[in-house]
Amino acid sequence: MSKIGIIMGSTSDLPVMQEAIDILATFGIETEVDIVSAHRTPDKLFDYGKNAHLRDISVIIAGAGGAAHLPGMIASLSPLPVIGVPVKSSNSIDGWDSVLSILQMPGGVPVATVALNGAKNAGILAAQILGSSSPEILQKVVDYKESLKQKVEEGAKNIKK
Amino acid sequence: MSKIGIIMGSTSDLPVMQEAIDILATFGIETEVDIVSAHRTPDKLFDYGKNAHLRDISVIIAGAGGAAHLPGMIASLSPLPVIGVPVKSSNSIDGWDSVLSILQMPGGVPVATVALNGAKNAGILAAQILGSSSPEILQKVVDYKESLKQKVEEGAKNIKK
Amino acid sequence: MSKIGIIMGSTSDLPVMQEAIDILATFGIETEVDIVSAHRTPDKLFDYGKNAHLRDISVIIAGAGGAAHLPGMIASLSPLPVIGVPVKSSNSIDGWDSVLSILQMPGGVPVATVALNGAKNAGILAAQILGSSSPEILQKVVDYKESLKQKVEEGAKNIKK
Amino acid sequence: MSKIGIIMGSTSDLPVMQEAIDILATFGIETEVDIVSAHRTPDKLFDYGKNAHLRDISVIIAGAGGAAHLPGMIASLSPLPVIGVPVKSSNSIDGWDSVLSILQMPGGVPVATVALNGAKNAGILAAQILGSSSPEILQKVVDYKESLKQKVEEGAKNIKK
Amino acid sequence: MSKIGIIMGSTSDLPVMQEAIDILATFGIETEVDIVSAHRTPDKLFDYGKNAHLRDISVIIAGAGGAAHLPGMIASLSPLPVIGVPVKSSNSIDGWDSVLSILQMPGGVPVATVALNGAKNAGILAAQILGSSSPEILQKVVDYKESLKQKVEEGAKNIKK
Amino acid sequence: MSKIGIIMGSTSDLPVMQEAIDILATFGIETEVDIVSAHRTPDKLFDYGKNAHLRDISVIIAGAGGAAHLPGMIASLSPLPVIGVPVKSSNSIDGWDSVLSILQMPGGVPVATVALNGAKNAGILAAQILGSSSPEILQKVVDYKESLKQKVEEGAKNIKK
Amino acid sequence: MSKIGIIMGSTSDLPVMQEAIDILATFGIETEVDIVSAHRTPDKLFDYGKNAHLRDISVIIAGAGGAAHLPGMIASLSPLPVIGVPVKSSNSIDGWDSVLSILQMPGGVPVATVALNGAKNAGILAAQILGSSSPEILQKVVDYKESLKQKVEEGAKNIKK
Amino acid sequence: MSKIGIIMGSTSDLPVMQEAIDILATFGIETEVDIVSAHRTPDKLFDYGKNAHLRDISVIIAGAGGAAHLPGMIASLSPLPVIGVPVKSSNSIDGWDSVLSILQMPGGVPVATVALNGAKNAGILAAQILGSSSPEILQKVVDYKESLKQKVEEGAKNIKK
Repeated sequence: MSKIGIIMGSTSDLPVMQEAIDILATFGIETEVDIVSAHRTPDKLFDYGKNAHLRDISVIIAGAGGAAHLPGMIASLSPLPVIGVPVKSSNSIDGWDSVLSILQMPGGVPVATVALNGAKNAGILAAQILGSSSPEILQKVVDYKESLKQKVEEGAKNIKK
Repeated sequence: MSKIGIIMGSTSDLPVMQEAIDILATFGIETEVDIVSAHRTPDKLFDYGKNAHLRDISVIIAGAGGAAHLPGMIASLSPLPVIGVPVKSSNSIDGWDSVLSILQMPGGVPVATVALNGAKNAGILAAQILGSSSPEILQKVVDYKESLKQKVEEGAKNIKK
Repeated sequence: MSKIGIIMGSTSDLPVMQEAIDILATFGIETEVDIVSAHRTPDKLFDYGKNAHLRDISVIIAGAGGAAHLPGMIASLSPLPVIGVPVKSSNSIDGWDSVLSILQMPGGVPVATVALNGAKNAGILAAQILGSSSPEILQKVVDYKESLKQKVEEGAKNIKK
Repeated sequence: MSKIGIIMGSTSDLPVMQEAIDILATFGIETEVDIVSAHRTPDKLFDYGKNAHLRDISVIIAGAGGAAHLPGMIASLSPLPVIGVPVKSSNSIDGWDSVLSILQMPGGVPVATVALNGAKNAGILAAQILGSSSPEILQKVVDYKESLKQKVEEGAKNIKK
Repeated sequence: MSKIGIIMGSTSDLPVMQEAIDILATFGIETEVDIVSAHRTPDKLFDYGKNAHLRDISVIIAGAGGAAHLPGMIASLSPLPVIGVPVKSSNSIDGWDSVLSILQMPGGVPVATVALNGAKNAGILAAQILGSSSPEILQKVVDYKESLKQKVEEGAKNIKK
Repeated sequence: MSKIGIIMGSTSDLPVMQEAIDILATFGIETEVDIVSAHRTPDKLFDYGKNAHLRDISVIIAGAGGAAHLPGMIASLSPLPVIGVPVKSSNSIDGWDSVLSILQMPGGVPVATVALNGAKNAGILAAQILGSSSPEILQKVVDYKESLKQKVEEGAKNIKK
Repeated sequence: MSKIGIIMGSTSDLPVMQEAIDILATFGIETEVDIVSAHRTPDKLFDYGKNAHLRDISVIIAGAGGAAHLPGMIASLSPLPVIGVPVKSSNSIDGWDSVLSILQMPGGVPVATVALNGAKNAGILAAQILGSSSPEILQKVVDYKESLKQKVEEGAKNIKK
Repeated sequence: MSKIGIIMGSTSDLPVMQEAIDILATFGIETEVDIVSAHRTPDKLFDYGKNAHLRDISVIIAGAGGAAHLPGMIASLSPLPVIGVPVKSSNSIDGWDSVLSILQMPGGVPVATVALNGAKNAGILAAQILGSSSPEILQKVVDYKESLKQKVEEGAKNIKK
């Protein structure tokens, strides 16, 4: 089965990006995690973007903060679907820079952007992408959504006591 | 082969959303287009969201403006990957409301958000999602990216004359 | 006498929404509190929205954060007046997403939006709505406004000492 | 039957506010329209706010732009529910000033805020408030929502041809 | 000699507004401090605004937060120059609501707005207004500016050591 | 009688600033108009700021757009009250840069900021400042406010026909 | 003498970027203009960034709009000073995305950002950079600043007539 | 060899600006540090701006917060390249005022703006400007970029363990 590539611009993004790693583990989907900085390791960026689809990676999750160029540059280099996670890093202006520099890609080069710090949703979206061609993973997504519902219902019971 | 479902909140969103229909036609990918309003046809919303994956749809593109609830509610109801297109509708505050009410989904329910009015990129992203399990479609994405490059190079030639 | 339905997207919204419960208790108006998540319990959302006016509920207060779809979806489903409380949840971008995704509803489906985290005002507004057809409750609102005035005047006395 | 009071800060707000007048006429609900400027006719503001509930008015709709103080000051003076319409006037900064100076009322004094230029929704909300104690008006709201649905469905038919 | 009237919407604004009181004391200019809430004590607001210039007040400083209507309403009622201090209160969205609802007054009714929480500058501005017709106070402003310069120069000396 | 100095950063600001000139003419107050660019004529800026109070100027109105430094620099150099008019110039980002670079002055150096393009209000504020020590001008302000009221009342008559 | 490299993401950026070309021609400084798209021609981007300093280029001016990655990626690849011009392209949200994705670079990789659409200033800044080591060019900058002053003074003469 | 002039509006900006001093020390480039307040020491500002290029300074780094006029006024007075550092000072509205009042300079007077609190990048940019005419310093920049890359690669090794 194919893998999800998870990359981030800096080790300081790991606490946020860990949620993508964890939820994909829950779904039993293999991940490959690496640090790739668009601004500090441009050669690694090029190598990663050009070759990911030639290895066994089928979806790329890329997280970055501030003027976040990693997701968009990977989308420039790779034909795979790229999920961008805007990270509210310490040098960010309330997260607006991270969000806009990932979301507002020009026509021709999409990045599937999730919420600020929304790495968990990036992982679920990657699972849904695999699930769109795998009935087995689709069923896991259905089960996951059922578990969300049950958790809310338990909370509702407590509030009504 | 599976289809891409393209829905929008109002016929007034069609000029923007047409770009998704057109680019997917270019890729030779079948689409099914409908109007589904979260706020005016909630029953149709529920029916659409609950059953899309039981028909032959594998990715849903949903466009809406203002307090745009269509993409997020479809993502709530369907296990399929949902791509959200924020539309800068006439009642929107410079597009910020459309962007934020699609992008900022809570943990558990992702929407793959593209740029404001970025319906073309929504179509390309849908193709990339199909391509992640179809070498044939992946090759079409590779070819498309090559065509983008050639168009820029022609522009560059003209500017240097 | 009719009741005010108070719902919220998550138990984590309760500390904010409690102010609506408390102020309505002060007015002697009965409330019914529940957790209804637009994104995690869509069936409950539909059931709640479609039936609230068939039970003894006359106004609905709905609080949610981030891409907050609960107030708008309830307004889509119910003919009752819906008061929306934008909650500054942990995943919110300074509250802007909560505010805009509740306030900017399309023509035809209003949500009576109050200030960010303004659950107390949502409660008072619900009382005013009941008061618009009940002289008894209207008088309670008049008395409440008088009590606000007296509190300010006491503060003024202290400052002038 | 009681009336809806519709006031605005300037005759230049009338093109926006007319939608509230029109939709309430459709519902067969009587309206009383006036110009009341918080900043230029403060005495009229005081008289209006203090006496509206003593006449046959049960809900007040107030529209204003820029540093929009009319809705909040009326809410300060009247025990009735006040619906605020932020108007994107010529001196407004993209509507943000109008929205924030109406929405962000302090605890104790709510204004039921609708979308920027959302006068139509203000009218519908006023009807819903009357409907919360009048089965006849509630039915009109139910019928109106049905008409919205049918209009969307006709649009959907055309798009699928 | 005439006095500066300093008013604020709530005792919670006092820590910010104290800076205006203190700097005016430094200039030897008399102040009169009071709590006047536009939303909770509208009668006091009217009385204050209509009569301040008939007493010995020549400039009014008004501070408020959130949907801050106090400065603008006082400017509506009084012919005196009104200085508005946007306060970043606990219910404010990063101060934007306070700033915009004080600054963006319609043509005809100015409020002299200072920076967010800029009560000190409001005091200095009041002194400058008195100074524009009083050579003695003008000289105090000149001296104050000289003291600012000397403080910076001392800091500069330390940094160059 | 003293004069109001009106300066602006560029002749392109004149259409906006003309409103200050006109309203002061209405009040019978003398003005002196000049172009002073903080960024292109810094020597003139210094000369103007240092000497205005030594000539017969008692209030300075300064308008500028974009990174608008003229009002703040004049306030740095002159002990007179400085009124800043943020101009929405062609190079401005929706006016936010003009507003923030005039309003957000540091402690010690106030600029009395009016609304975006609010030159008319700058003129009225200058009149009010003169009026705070001149009963004759104060009366003109009172009369002006009365004229505003009458204009609104005429508009109200027409709307009620 | 060395050249200024001027690149932009798309031919549609040329009307804005032409101002940089023109002002540098005025200074008699040679320029080399090209189209380099970070997202559509990543190989050309890499080649350009890695080799510019090995050719006779000493400063790079890069203009782009939306999620503008060109200036930052060139700064990642080249040791030369990179001047970024945020372009308000048709797909931009009022220019905020262009500004933030160029300005907010992480520590270690600066981009010298100028105002939105500020290509003229980018050209002047490039001249100033050359001037910091060339007395001849420095003198041209001094002369240019003198010409700005004279133009303002002529405008001032006309306004005072 | 020439020096880099580093100035800031207040000693409270020093913790941010120290990063520029430190990185330039690393590059072995001499700096001269001073406090120059546009608003409190305008004479020193004028003297500094007019004479820096006549001493041995070749690039000026200026940091300031709030309505930050120091970088732009220095750029008005000096023909040297001026690098502006927006500082998120205590009186700033989330840094937006600092950023916009430095970045949005009018045509003719550029400021090379770096990220909010980006003093380190200001120092690197100054080194790059010297490096554009000094092969020795250019090599130091190349080496620095190599060190950034190695640090990321070490982080990547740890994450893959």
